[in-house]
Amino acid sequence: MSDPILSASLVARFAEIVGERHALVAEADIAPFVSERRGLFGGRTSLVLRPGSVEEVSRILALASETGTPVVPQGGNTGLVGGQTPDMSGGQVVLSLSRLDRIREVDVASNTMTVEAGVVLQRAQEAADAAGRLFPLSLASQGTAQIGGNLSSNAGGTGVLAYGNARELCLGVEVVLPTGEVFDDLRKLKKDNTGYDLKNLFVGAEGTLGIITAAVLKLFPKPKGREVAWIGLQSPEAALALFALASDRAGSGLTAFELCARIAVDFSVRHIPGIVAPLASEHPWLVLMEISSGRSAEDARALIEEVLAEGIEGELADNAVIAQNLSQADAFWAVREAMSEAQKPEGVSIKHDISVPVASIPDFIHEAGAAVLQAAPGARLVTFGHMGDGNLHYNISQPEGMEEQAFLARYREVNDIVHGVVRRFGGSISAEHGIGRMKRDELIATAPPVATDLMRRIKASFDPAGIMNPGKVI
Amino acid sequence: MSDPILSASLVARFAEIVGERHALVAEADIAPFVSERRGLFGGRTSLVLRPGSVEEVSRILALASETGTPVVPQGGNTGLVGGQTPDMSGGQVVLSLSRLDRIREVDVASNTMTVEAGVVLQRAQEAADAAGRLFPLSLASQGTAQIGGNLSSNAGGTGVLAYGNARELCLGVEVVLPTGEVFDDLRKLKKDNTGYDLKNLFVGAEGTLGIITAAVLKLFPKPKGREVAWIGLQSPEAALALFALASDRAGSGLTAFELCARIAVDFSVRHIPGIVAPLASEHPWLVLMEISSGRSAEDARALIEEVLAEGIEGELADNAVIAQNLSQADAFWAVREAMSEAQKPEGVSIKHDISVPVASIPDFIHEAGAAVLQAAPGARLVTFGHMGDGNLHYNISQPEGMEEQAFLARYREVNDIVHGVVRRFGGSISAEHGIGRMKRDELIATAPPVATDLMRRIKASFDPAGIMNPGKVI
Repeated sequence: MSDPILSASLVARFAEIVGERHALVAEADIAPFVSERRGLFGGRTSLVLRPGSVEEVSRILALASETGTPVVPQGGNTGLVGGQTPDMSGGQVVLSLSRLDRIREVDVASNTMTVEAGVVLQRAQEAADAAGRLFPLSLASQGTAQIGGNLSSNAGGTGVLAYGNARELCLGVEVVLPTGEVFDDLRKLKKDNTGYDLKNLFVGAEGTLGIITAAVLKLFPKPKGREVAWIGLQSPEAALALFALASDRAGSGLTAFELCARIAVDFSVRHIPGIVAPLASEHPWLVLMEISSGRSAEDARALIEEVLAEGIEGELADNAVIAQNLSQADAFWAVREAMSEAQKPEGVSIKHDISVPVASIPDFIHEAGAAVLQAAPGARLVTFGHMGDGNLHYNISQPEGMEEQAFLARYREVNDIVHGVVRRFGGSISAEHGIGRMKRDELIATAPPVATDLMRRIKASFDPAGIMNPGKVI
Repeated sequence: MSDPILSASLVARFAEIVGERHALVAEADIAPFVSERRGLFGGRTSLVLRPGSVEEVSRILALASETGTPVVPQGGNTGLVGGQTPDMSGGQVVLSLSRLDRIREVDVASNTMTVEAGVVLQRAQEAADAAGRLFPLSLASQGTAQIGGNLSSNAGGTGVLAYGNARELCLGVEVVLPTGEVFDDLRKLKKDNTGYDLKNLFVGAEGTLGIITAAVLKLFPKPKGREVAWIGLQSPEAALALFALASDRAGSGLTAFELCARIAVDFSVRHIPGIVAPLASEHPWLVLMEISSGRSAEDARALIEEVLAEGIEGELADNAVIAQNLSQADAFWAVREAMSEAQKPEGVSIKHDISVPVASIPDFIHEAGAAVLQAAPGARLVTFGHMGDGNLHYNISQPEGMEEQAFLARYREVNDIVHGVVRRFGGSISAEHGIGRMKRDELIATAPPVATDLMRRIKASFDPAGIMNPGKVI
């Protein structure tokens, strides 16, 4: 390792703010903060700061501004696009929000909860549940991911269909600006038209404009009934028709509609212990559908049975099975949640997090599939995702028997093919994971210059010294 | 009138873009564009441009930028805060979006509609209806207000409780920037995390950052049943408890919950022809509640009956009457919709468009009422509004027999009293009408400097020449 870029005196000044104990300088202590779990976006630093209060965050950023020191905010370090780790320069300080983990308030009457950035998502869900409410943001990484990161990346997940993404679940934010000033906008208001929408700029900015230190989150009534079914069908077109039917019958009671290619289910069953095939019969496509009712368990049951009966009668669905109890419902969801993990034993994969208009999902699947297979014969299209949101995790496992590196060498080429199809449908190359480091160059290369120019102007006006998470987003 | 600030040659250059016919210069033609219907925020200009295409809007703004000519975008001219009219200088060109009135597409399968800025809201509703869908934005001025203005002011109205405000109903925008560049972000995506949220900056910016020329709007399934009831009750506290009960039972099927002081209902009945008292009995407070069902008319009926029965049994409500048919439902709504108009024959009023957390509505009503009556004894508190959104039109009619000017002289003082109480509850002084000219000074004086500073930075970076609707918002 070369000499650290951060001088000893600067490290000492930062450490003084949080106290020695919370300024990590030993390589072993730093290690968990400079890589992420897939090992894709590693970096270096000689300082990780773990402030314990908003005031400490403020003092850190004021010092960073004064000294021109870049700061990388980090939550649960579960991001998938490298937004939360430092670069290889060694000159970026990591600021972990983990110690800002207070649930400041649960306001049952206003259906809001005010939490700090470092609160783990699952803890926020549990606090809402204990108050008789639902906080519907739900992700595979919820046991580790933190609210600050969820908001900074505008997280999606499986609850978006009925409740919206992280942006829509947030009423107000508290943000420390690059200067150290605190922007306190922790409002519980459903309506507020006093000037520009600053909240939505910080949400989704991946820590490049300031650091979200707390937020007011929306709570919802807990559903009184929830029913989950796996459904076998012949095509994405049938799934789209079934989605339209279910939306019509259940309205906002349709709380999940996940489309999965058969191979995605097969991988889960084959590789993940305890995962059981949801349907005895074989179908090229499967849908995991969840219907909830605010009225009663019986109501949810009657509604899902009605949708499935109509779907089968209308020849949209071949077959379906409804979970008979809570543990079976969890087992049904486990099949879906295991899909990402289950691709690993099948070799390397080239991944995409795309969205298109919901009605274009079938055409996208056909066009992208044909284009990928022409370029990479034998590649396995492990298509699954949140069809109701128009969002697919369009993941492509390597052909069987191919050298891993040979397939990975084509990552960019396959990305370009898939993203080209996405663009033809007016879609997004980052539906829910963000831009981070991974997609920054592609965003700049392919977004309309007028859009990236506006983003650069915002960045320059909010963070003129360029200390906030440089190298990410824009 | 003094010599026009806009030179003849400049007027000619602008006129050449839209054609003589659509460049209004005669005083009589200009008159409707320089005042608004209440006559509060008049101004002057010697040129109103009515472009017929996005390209013409682009050329106008390019010329405006080149020549430093301020431009005031205008839709249906129904705004309530003076955001859409020019100042008294005579040097601001009015740009009317009325001719950009194409409904470009209704995409039933994706539940979206792409419309131009000049489409009148009611026409957008009707186009959605004709396609078997609901566009839920609903305002008293919907027969005149245009989509561009609705989005620029982030309009609220009666559909917010279940469907959100204009911001939440908009998936994508097309915007002409001050330079004339076109930012085309007309996406139909529910999820898109590619960089900063530019859409939500333009929505609600009241034309100060650019001109929205088209938008992608969300559509929803049409409810299959809709039931409306007037309910008599004793207090705002009882209304809050009833709201909690109705939310719990009906969830997103609770599509309106409007709280009205008895005097507001009395004014409507007294002054507006055809308005009939909704309840025979007398109650200090009334609620207009609407429950919709995506399933059936019977379902909506059963649900509203259940809520009312429980509310009356639990002594939250004294009495209630459900509309027996569509025309009675319309008549029920008419009582509510007439309230603003019905204040006029009672003399002048001092108005507020405020929001507080829903749970704080009762305390707000008591505290604000006490403070206002102490300062202005005999003032009549004509409180009504969207309680379910925490949003009240807190309008105060003058004491009976008082000189109008004597009451109006106290406008600012009473505003300050009410807004002071709003701030104590963490509320907003502009819940749904925006800032415009009316509340600009107050926003700047009372918002945290860190917030107004960020807004100024955005304004300066998007519109460095300051040509976009100057004097509004910030």
